[in-house]
Amino acid sequence: MQKRTTPSEALLRKYPEQVVLVTTRSADGRPNVMAVGWVAIASSDPPMFVLGIDDGAYTYELITRTKEFVVAFPSERMARETLFAGSHSGRDKDKFAEAGIGAEPAALVKAPLVADAVANFECVLVEISRPGDCPLVMGKVVAAHAHEDTSLRRLYTTAKGHTLGGVRAAAGGE
Amino acid sequence: MQKRTTPSEALLRKYPEQVVLVTTRSADGRPNVMAVGWVAIASSDPPMFVLGIDDGAYTYELITRTKEFVVAFPSERMARETLFAGSHSGRDKDKFAEAGIGAEPAALVKAPLVADAVANFECVLVEISRPGDCPLVMGKVVAAHAHEDTSLRRLYTTAKGHTLGGVRAAAGGE
Repeated sequence: MQKRTTPSEALLRKYPEQVVLVTTRSADGRPNVMAVGWVAIASSDPPMFVLGIDDGAYTYELITRTKEFVVAFPSERMARETLFAGSHSGRDKDKFAEAGIGAEPAALVKAPLVADAVANFECVLVEISRPGDCPLVMGKVVAAHAHEDTSLRRLYTTAKGHTLGGVRAAAGGE
Repeated sequence: MQKRTTPSEALLRKYPEQVVLVTTRSADGRPNVMAVGWVAIASSDPPMFVLGIDDGAYTYELITRTKEFVVAFPSERMARETLFAGSHSGRDKDKFAEAGIGAEPAALVKAPLVADAVANFECVLVEISRPGDCPLVMGKVVAAHAHEDTSLRRLYTTAKGHTLGGVRAAAGGE
């Protein structure tokens, strides 16, 4: 039975929620990374992602300037690094260095890959829409990479308060 | 270390992935329901969802006609029902009846709530964009409901091949 409540209260039932890291690189060569929970696949062919990125974020500024970025699936071992990326601004610090996030060069874009991520997707900006209070950044995947360790699993926001961790399938699925 | 691969291969590392049910109602009163995996929150105020819904889907036709729908988080006990909703078309059958999915009346829209869902969000259509090969349906939440059983958990696609089930936080998160 359903009980009417506020959207905010009902949305607390959304967890675990996927989280990704979005990397960018400024014109002067400095890499940046942020955490994004509002993310979904947006197209199969070409493969695309849609990302909700606040227009006050430094990442948003860099994406609009450089027209490219990388979407990485952080591994479940990257809870600390992802929380750091999600709670500091790259305007005033090098989050890769301070959080100890390893970078690797991408194939086609200047933004770096996340070395320890489960997978990385190099993207070029297609368009930005704004149906509500947040810009939705649409990126086309132009190159993809996966961690050579195929046992590595994704990180999730498992509960409110930025609780991050891995998840396992429960018994009884089908 | 990252190894370059195809986007399709790298995307196989995405699981578990969230899944929602989207309900609609035709002009002649018949309810319909489909499963959608390409979904994310798109705005805080007003709360909104973005959904990737194939334009060949009956749900897409009903949303463009009626301008409203409900986004429901199926519970982990609804794997069979969700798989049914995701693998049949409502053009030729009543998926609520055939899958045994219970419905409840919504407060503000004609599309029904999913009685056994973790939460339901009544939405009105805001806009549809098409950055790639799939329409992205943006819906504004106008009313919300949550299941009175607060221990009920969401359903996920836990592996390829439409493997559906619940997930639990793994040890070691932070």
